Amino acid sequence: MARGPEFDLIRRFLPRQSPERPDVRLGPGDDCAIVVGDGIALSADMSVEGVHFRRDWLSFQEIGGRAAAAALSDLAAMAARPIGILVSLAIPEADAGEAAVEVMDGIRRVAADVGAALLGGDTTRSPGPLAIDVTVVGEAPNPVPRSGAAVGDEVWVTGELGGSGLFVRQMLAGERPSRRARERFAAPVPRVAEARWLAGRGLARAMIDLSDGLAGDAAHLSAASGVAILLAPELIPIHPSVRRHARRDDALRLAISGGEDYELCFTAPIGLMEQHAEAFRAAFRIPLTCVGRVSGGDGVWWTDAEGHRQPLGTSGYQHFGGERDG
Amino acid sequence: MARGPEFDLIRRFLPRQSPERPDVRLGPGDDCAIVVGDGIALSADMSVEGVHFRRDWLSFQEIGGRAAAAALSDLAAMAARPIGILVSLAIPEADAGEAAVEVMDGIRRVAADVGAALLGGDTTRSPGPLAIDVTVVGEAPNPVPRSGAAVGDEVWVTGELGGSGLFVRQMLAGERPSRRARERFAAPVPRVAEARWLAGRGLARAMIDLSDGLAGDAAHLSAASGVAILLAPELIPIHPSVRRHARRDDALRLAISGGEDYELCFTAPIGLMEQHAEAFRAAFRIPLTCVGRVSGGDGVWWTDAEGHRQPLGTSGYQHFGGERDG
Repeated sequence: MARGPEFDLIRRFLPRQSPERPDVRLGPGDDCAIVVGDGIALSADMSVEGVHFRRDWLSFQEIGGRAAAAALSDLAAMAARPIGILVSLAIPEADAGEAAVEVMDGIRRVAADVGAALLGGDTTRSPGPLAIDVTVVGEAPNPVPRSGAAVGDEVWVTGELGGSGLFVRQMLAGERPSRRARERFAAPVPRVAEARWLAGRGLARAMIDLSDGLAGDAAHLSAASGVAILLAPELIPIHPSVRRHARRDDALRLAISGGEDYELCFTAPIGLMEQHAEAFRAAFRIPLTCVGRVSGGDGVWWTDAEGHRQPLGTSGYQHFGGERDG
Repeated sequence: MARGPEFDLIRRFLPRQSPERPDVRLGPGDDCAIVVGDGIALSADMSVEGVHFRRDWLSFQEIGGRAAAAALSDLAAMAARPIGILVSLAIPEADAGEAAVEVMDGIRRVAADVGAALLGGDTTRSPGPLAIDVTVVGEAPNPVPRSGAAVGDEVWVTGELGGSGLFVRQMLAGERPSRRARERFAAPVPRVAEARWLAGRGLARAMIDLSDGLAGDAAHLSAASGVAILLAPELIPIHPSVRRHARRDDALRLAISGGEDYELCFTAPIGLMEQHAEAFRAAFRIPLTCVGRVSGGDGVWWTDAEGHRQPLGTSGYQHFGGERDG
């Protein structure tokens, strides 16, 4: 019923010329873009206003950047090299001007930061919320899957966890948010370079990005690999904002189930990472922490020094609306 | 704020195992799918309730199938061989059960008809309308671009035009819709096999799919190729439902500006197509019609037997809400 006005808008967004890079044979402007590479990795991630973001919490640039980061994080999780993105926007009439331009600007900046070109997309009016679907495109000749974890592997995570979840909780409670927690929510950084560094050295056997929270995402690794994952609570790298604003148990819970930190969780053969951890930290200036190990069985468990397993207590995180986990 | 519940829904939709085909190295279930091919063609198309479809006009299966067809039509336009699709759904709470399953079923059927596997996607709650973004993935070692039209070429279209536009008009006027017009709107067929047949024989030099209507899409061809396109009004293949329900001038207007017919428009070297047209019609059982020719200059024009140019009068079609063209 409505093809047409969208074209004017998308044309404003899309570069006229193909990006000059050997992996983009044809850029935006035709019916399809065409990319080349040895194994093209693809993933789509949709962000909807009122579900994934609220406009009173973020600038339009942040809304766009965050949507792009969430999508690009899936390329990181495979250790793929980003090529480009396709962006579909459904825009409320009132936002079709400057707001839409800012959303696209935020998307483009985050994409450019990891070397991804704008390849195409679609723009349409929305009679409801702002919605952004980002499809990411990368090259992954040697992808690191979720299924590669082996019994005996160590479990590592990049960065510090729980900041994003803390911000959501603070906002919903009407509290003044912690500045550093806000940054974690508003401007997550897809760990693309970090993942490629790890994969390039053969250090990551199985990998996933932390969108649901460590508890939930480790469960995905565990299920895909057919192993149990044992986490040591005292090793979990809790974001400083969370340590400051939440008590011990609560902080730990936020760190493993707060979600949307977009850090990496991966498994590495025992003893191997330790030799590379300092070089990683020096290269990327973010923490890198061994948080547990892979064992026989299934599921994700807390473990103590004696190796006793205890239920994690929470299986991930759900809605800001509070269906399950607040 | 909300990663989580969507996983349960998308898991219901996605096959557990990778499709067994050499062009899909990794199917759904990991952070990315991975495809291989010589030139991967990509396009995204978003369908939003109240803008692109209305639920009182279509079944949920048709809503899904139509969204998939619109997206896959862009692969046809490049003469790409479909590999797969990624589907992002934003679903109103009340539709998260059977309705969503039917939407996905409609998508999957149309995709399967052209050999496209379900590679992944995203599912989320929508606080507003149902929205479907379909990213299509194909192999296009020798894509047919919009920019290949040469002066002297003939302009051809597949099928018959205007049926989809007639249905929209009838529905908006509260008339009982023509059954055949409804079919054109509700179940468009992406001309994937037809496009590959034409491209495989070196017959199509420039190609586009008719989503905006012939007037608008020929203008895209014209602009991309830097040529004028001259259309002969008496040659335009008007859909029978349109011939029956509209007067001559009005019928012609619907045929060139009704939009969403998802037929192909392509240019071919002069005299070449005529030798292949019968074989095409026999193979696909749809009309194939020469509607004009490519000339020097720019824009899209009506032309008569003497070659006089007249303005087309309407430059495409816009909204069911009637911004420009009703």
